[in-house]
Amino acid sequence: MRDVYVIGVGITRFGELWERSFRDIGIEAGIKAINDSGIAGDDIDALYIGNMSAGAFINQEHIGALIVDYVGFASSSHIPAVRVEAAGASGAIAFKEAYLSIASGMHDIAVVGGAEKMTDIGDEMANAIQGMVIDQEWETVFGATYASLQAMMARAHMEKYGTTREQLGMVSVINHRHGALNPDAQFQREIKLQTVLNSGYVAEPLRVFDMAPLSDGAASLVLASGDVAKKYTDNPVKVKGIGQASDTISLHDRREICTMDATVHAAKRAYERAGAKPADIDVAEVYDSSTIAEIIAIEDLGFFDKGQGGKAVEDERIALTGEIPVNTSGGLKARGHPVGATGVAQIVEIVKQLRGEADKRQVKDARLGLAHAVGGSGATAVVSILEGSQ
Amino acid sequence: MRDVYVIGVGITRFGELWERSFRDIGIEAGIKAINDSGIAGDDIDALYIGNMSAGAFINQEHIGALIVDYVGFASSSHIPAVRVEAAGASGAIAFKEAYLSIASGMHDIAVVGGAEKMTDIGDEMANAIQGMVIDQEWETVFGATYASLQAMMARAHMEKYGTTREQLGMVSVINHRHGALNPDAQFQREIKLQTVLNSGYVAEPLRVFDMAPLSDGAASLVLASGDVAKKYTDNPVKVKGIGQASDTISLHDRREICTMDATVHAAKRAYERAGAKPADIDVAEVYDSSTIAEIIAIEDLGFFDKGQGGKAVEDERIALTGEIPVNTSGGLKARGHPVGATGVAQIVEIVKQLRGEADKRQVKDARLGLAHAVGGSGATAVVSILEGSQ
Repeated sequence: MRDVYVIGVGITRFGELWERSFRDIGIEAGIKAINDSGIAGDDIDALYIGNMSAGAFINQEHIGALIVDYVGFASSSHIPAVRVEAAGASGAIAFKEAYLSIASGMHDIAVVGGAEKMTDIGDEMANAIQGMVIDQEWETVFGATYASLQAMMARAHMEKYGTTREQLGMVSVINHRHGALNPDAQFQREIKLQTVLNSGYVAEPLRVFDMAPLSDGAASLVLASGDVAKKYTDNPVKVKGIGQASDTISLHDRREICTMDATVHAAKRAYERAGAKPADIDVAEVYDSSTIAEIIAIEDLGFFDKGQGGKAVEDERIALTGEIPVNTSGGLKARGHPVGATGVAQIVEIVKQLRGEADKRQVKDARLGLAHAVGGSGATAVVSILEGSQ
Repeated sequence: MRDVYVIGVGITRFGELWERSFRDIGIEAGIKAINDSGIAGDDIDALYIGNMSAGAFINQEHIGALIVDYVGFASSSHIPAVRVEAAGASGAIAFKEAYLSIASGMHDIAVVGGAEKMTDIGDEMANAIQGMVIDQEWETVFGATYASLQAMMARAHMEKYGTTREQLGMVSVINHRHGALNPDAQFQREIKLQTVLNSGYVAEPLRVFDMAPLSDGAASLVLASGDVAKKYTDNPVKVKGIGQASDTISLHDRREICTMDATVHAAKRAYERAGAKPADIDVAEVYDSSTIAEIIAIEDLGFFDKGQGGKAVEDERIALTGEIPVNTSGGLKARGHPVGATGVAQIVEIVKQLRGEADKRQVKDARLGLAHAVGGSGATAVVSILEGSQ
């Protein structure tokens, strides 16, 4: 397999972007990444798009064709455009497939985009659409929602490992603290633990401030083969290894629910391919669709022993000042969570960190970074490990 | 890039399968392909799924996770599952991405699936969902439908090249003739030209019998690297070259509408990668979502000069007995068109032909086969060329 590098990144501000269309934000992110890389439009060989539910959110499928047209390559270079979907892992898989298209030798330069427009449709409808990522026939029909499944995981983790309500809340506090340092984040205000604990229930024990918001936003990357990357930048970020894995779509079919086996297996594959171990990672973006999801993630990724995630958060070992800074972007909670964009936005943040361009939230001497995305309640997971050249 | 082979195929009967669920037909096709290949489930490294709109048709996204679970690999080998979507080209792109995953060296064996469940929801709703593949903001909102755009292409082709209403009808007659020989086809009865010409208008000049039906169905393939393929079969079918290309999503933005530039560019890439030319092709499956679409396809693929497609159909040069048999499966018109499955079903047919297993519809001495899939009104096209080992 050929080496592959990230040579450009772009992202829109995340938020409730009611005055902007899906194609508008998709284009902004793409153009920013292309400009950042220094390549010309004609150099691009392929486009990969991560998107969950444009069909339901904006009545538009065939999203790859839409974006490749509106960024101007459909009628000029006629490059191929591929949309992939795996719920919250959509963007991460778009990144993986683009990586494979270059690693295989078919393409030299590929652009990755992730986008979702979720807030034009009303919260109730948007939540129903998000619910399409869990098992409709065996979960949704019987009353389960995305949040209620997260709540079951939280209850089980509290029961089994003594994780506390306050520890869950601290995930949100730390992510908001990081988000306040990120000018592209949806929420740029710090919050107090009491704010989380006083917020309304979504699904007991999880409250509003435990859950990632509904968001609009887009993010983009330019990937290139080694030869090409050298021509355009002296600061390329190498894709060291990507692992993807699956688990049952229904939560009740899992071996257990305090661990996401898909994350464990995806991480194992990524670490092996990268020749790295958890202790080597300097900075990570993990999938905090809820606060319990982040605690389970930092355990399953090997940063902390199983059951010790809550305590690690309480001790702020994952804060910017801690031993393994997690979600320096603000994570899904504070940066925002336009589902199809999330996996790409995570890579954008890791690349900025590894290039030393993360400004007020820069992790000192970050050389190896990890991004972790999840689809549904844990049926899909993708772990990507990247290495800076500094 | 490593060589990649198709070593197993499986397909359900296509039709209005009201008594069967999406997951049910997906599993049937997958198990058939796995059994056909002789591999064990544990040997599989990855799953790629083509599906257009399960979100809209059955309220379920995250289709890769659903299928990998229900075929039994989610909680055992935890293999990655990737869903791709590009309207009618979804299955063809799933095939391409699976091919890249093996060509790159990441995987040795990948299973490809394509599935769609379209007939449980009522025709009006199903047609609205199919309309999500054209440009919602600039076509659908102003009253255009999928069929009306095909009708514009037909009118333009008749005006510019003298293509006749009868020639369009003969596409349908020949495809039904082929479908009558295919036990998996949705429609297995021959029709007369007069039946097409007397059927009701969908969008003038196109009538009911000019349009592919709404269908349920699934198809599946097992792909393997060269070393692995040799272990399981002495009759592997080689993937010689795949090309994908894009054009504008809106028809009115095209250079012209009697040609699909996406097909032209995808074919050019595929022929180059395969080291082949149109005259080398022994059998082809092309995208006849309407009769005019097939006439445009056989011209754009280089089988006939531009403008001569109608005459070639009239002269039955594309029939089983002609010089280049097209849509021996019955095509989208007679085999049926469960959108996400179509691109995979086309490869299934080509593989059967190249193995000499197409029974009553076998093309004698078929060695090189081509499959052509289109997304939307021509914004995406994929051309795949395969070679038999006999």
